[in-house]
Amino acid sequence: MFLALAGAHGDPVASVALSLTVILLSAKLVGEIAVRLGQPAVLGEILAGVLLGNAHLVGFDGFSALRTDAAIDMLARIGVLLLLFEVGLESTVGQMLKVGLSSLSVAMIGVFVPFVLGWLTGAWLLPQQGPLVHAFLGATFCATSIGITARVLKDLSREKTEEARIVLGAAVIDDVLGLLILAVLSGVVAASNQGGTLAYGDVAFTLFKATAFLVVALTLGVYLSPRLFHLVSRLRARGALLAVGLGFCFLLAWLADVIGLSPIVGAFAAGLVLEDVHFRDFKERGEHGLEELVHPIASLLAPVFFVLMGLRTDLRALAAPGILGLAGVLTLVAIGGKAVAGLGAFGKGLDRLSIGIAMVPRGEVGLIFANVGLTLEVGGKPVIDGPTFSAVVVMVMLTTLVTPPALRFSLARAKRAK
Amino acid sequence: MFLALAGAHGDPVASVALSLTVILLSAKLVGEIAVRLGQPAVLGEILAGVLLGNAHLVGFDGFSALRTDAAIDMLARIGVLLLLFEVGLESTVGQMLKVGLSSLSVAMIGVFVPFVLGWLTGAWLLPQQGPLVHAFLGATFCATSIGITARVLKDLSREKTEEARIVLGAAVIDDVLGLLILAVLSGVVAASNQGGTLAYGDVAFTLFKATAFLVVALTLGVYLSPRLFHLVSRLRARGALLAVGLGFCFLLAWLADVIGLSPIVGAFAAGLVLEDVHFRDFKERGEHGLEELVHPIASLLAPVFFVLMGLRTDLRALAAPGILGLAGVLTLVAIGGKAVAGLGAFGKGLDRLSIGIAMVPRGEVGLIFANVGLTLEVGGKPVIDGPTFSAVVVMVMLTTLVTPPALRFSLARAKRAK
Repeated sequence: MFLALAGAHGDPVASVALSLTVILLSAKLVGEIAVRLGQPAVLGEILAGVLLGNAHLVGFDGFSALRTDAAIDMLARIGVLLLLFEVGLESTVGQMLKVGLSSLSVAMIGVFVPFVLGWLTGAWLLPQQGPLVHAFLGATFCATSIGITARVLKDLSREKTEEARIVLGAAVIDDVLGLLILAVLSGVVAASNQGGTLAYGDVAFTLFKATAFLVVALTLGVYLSPRLFHLVSRLRARGALLAVGLGFCFLLAWLADVIGLSPIVGAFAAGLVLEDVHFRDFKERGEHGLEELVHPIASLLAPVFFVLMGLRTDLRALAAPGILGLAGVLTLVAIGGKAVAGLGAFGKGLDRLSIGIAMVPRGEVGLIFANVGLTLEVGGKPVIDGPTFSAVVVMVMLTTLVTPPALRFSLARAKRAK
Repeated sequence: MFLALAGAHGDPVASVALSLTVILLSAKLVGEIAVRLGQPAVLGEILAGVLLGNAHLVGFDGFSALRTDAAIDMLARIGVLLLLFEVGLESTVGQMLKVGLSSLSVAMIGVFVPFVLGWLTGAWLLPQQGPLVHAFLGATFCATSIGITARVLKDLSREKTEEARIVLGAAVIDDVLGLLILAVLSGVVAASNQGGTLAYGDVAFTLFKATAFLVVALTLGVYLSPRLFHLVSRLRARGALLAVGLGFCFLLAWLADVIGLSPIVGAFAAGLVLEDVHFRDFKERGEHGLEELVHPIASLLAPVFFVLMGLRTDLRALAAPGILGLAGVLTLVAIGGKAVAGLGAFGKGLDRLSIGIAMVPRGEVGLIFANVGLTLEVGGKPVIDGPTFSAVVVMVMLTTLVTPPALRFSLARAKRAK
């Protein structure tokens, strides 16, 4: 009878609270070890997830449920939004425009080269599968996980450098270009299933929507936000700055999704638009600025995302025959294809190697792309089959794991050279 | 074809982002109006929810889905945990022990009087229903929503007064006593369904568990937390204080639920145990203390809870025949029954009226109790039927709505008298 009562009163927040305890404490513990070894804390957080997610291999299966917990998944997604918002807050639209041409050039190379290399690798290693699979493999190579990169740059206090702005701008453009390629491929799949043809007008419309969103959001935002926050500063209820700032971030994230972009693009754009100077009225009253208020929230939720990414990495996938080799080649191609993107940056004395390395992690975007390939079907069979998907997951994981130490090494090397 | 892509890429965080935008901005807007009218902001936040939740009555049905959104519900629950943690952080165990006897006495009166009055009211107004219904009605009168009270005290900057500590302590004890009554009643229901008898041993065990949890958590916490945070202050990775502090809060919340208590009791206990002096090492380095770090997170998530409470209030329930009258009598009894609890406080010059009024709101705990009555069945019929449940919901809502202005008035009156 008391079990029935516990069921009736038992609060669903309790299991989420326990999950958050495990995630936060393991993230800080392994993160601390990473820092002591001279690595960025985020690498430790991902590793904490890998350890928790694969504890069942040594007979302890207590953490597997975390991988599919809807509440933890949502907190992780909100965490990425806030992380990107925070990174955006640290730059301004003016600074981004200054590096805009470099970002565009880096992004174009960073999408084109990996896409072609991924396609060719597919044709070489998986000749029995059709060109659609090879093209899809190429598409999973296009994405840049701005979340991982942003966090590594923050961990190393390098998020305000010109190189960082070029990379973050390029990652946003990458997202748009990658989605376009994915849209075209999905169109080809749909057309081949229905025996129809691909509508080029739809492709052009997606490109137009994405560009229009960024231009309108940034232009309107730059014009409106000083006025909005001057108004907010006159409110008497406490906490208005945080509520309106986050409301703005969440609104643009939603709008980006409506347009067909990733919500993190909207959150980043919101952060770019808001500038420190808008909060002058608050700071003059001795209150915190928006960056100071957002930081604790992002530092609670962002580790949830990184631990979850580790949690979803199944080490057993490596054991399937041939997959380790495929994954190895894919990883090398994925790293090489993005690393050359740094050559696209204009300007004297730029650390082009670091720019290229910062573009390497595929993170959640690569996983989302691979997942679309697993979901889409041609003739009743998924475009990307199970073993190939595992290899892509390993590639995504390795590009993510390799970036923090490589970027750290490359940044230190550039510093010595100066 | 692009719809299919949007489905595949469409991020579930987008709809949550939109919901949070609506909740945060409406909470701040109506909250601001409340503040300008001289009321606490929390009243405006609940009213914002009532307006959103009943917008369908004037033909706009865009917000009803918020009421049952699992992600928003979970964020609200986490928000209450953090709010109670924050309130706990502002008091210490020593201060609570000083008012412990007053809290106990206030809590005993605040549970006994409403329980008996609720039972008698049920017997008077609903004679056709059995004594079990009357007893259940009494049980819904026992709870004190510490969340509402804590927030009102915070809005009025009165959360550190002796009266506030007595009330918060009493609310925690109330939760334990209320759960005990609920446990006994659920036992009676189960026993009458199975034709068996009630096990008094189980009741005693629940009481023992609850007491043991609080004593052990507070004692061990007071002993261990200075040592723990001294260790944490030596970590090199950033953000360790917030992660370990929140981890501690979430761990105790989970433990409370395991014991059969509400998780908010655990979160409050965690806050009580942690004291400013434990974070000395951090503050000496010029870093933020735990309170400053938790505040932005709580001020993001707590309004989600208050807006959601308003959202779940269906104004149409008032239209059913006789329900308005039943709700009115229940509300008066509920207010009167708790208001006398203030008389239980020991000490000279205490504002006993404010203590009594602060005990009035039933909030989420009253709703949970009523919901258990709706779920439990005797002879195939729910213990508390639909119309009675509606009346209880209205009572809960009115006790919640009436407290902020009444408490504000009573606190101002006490100030004038001094």
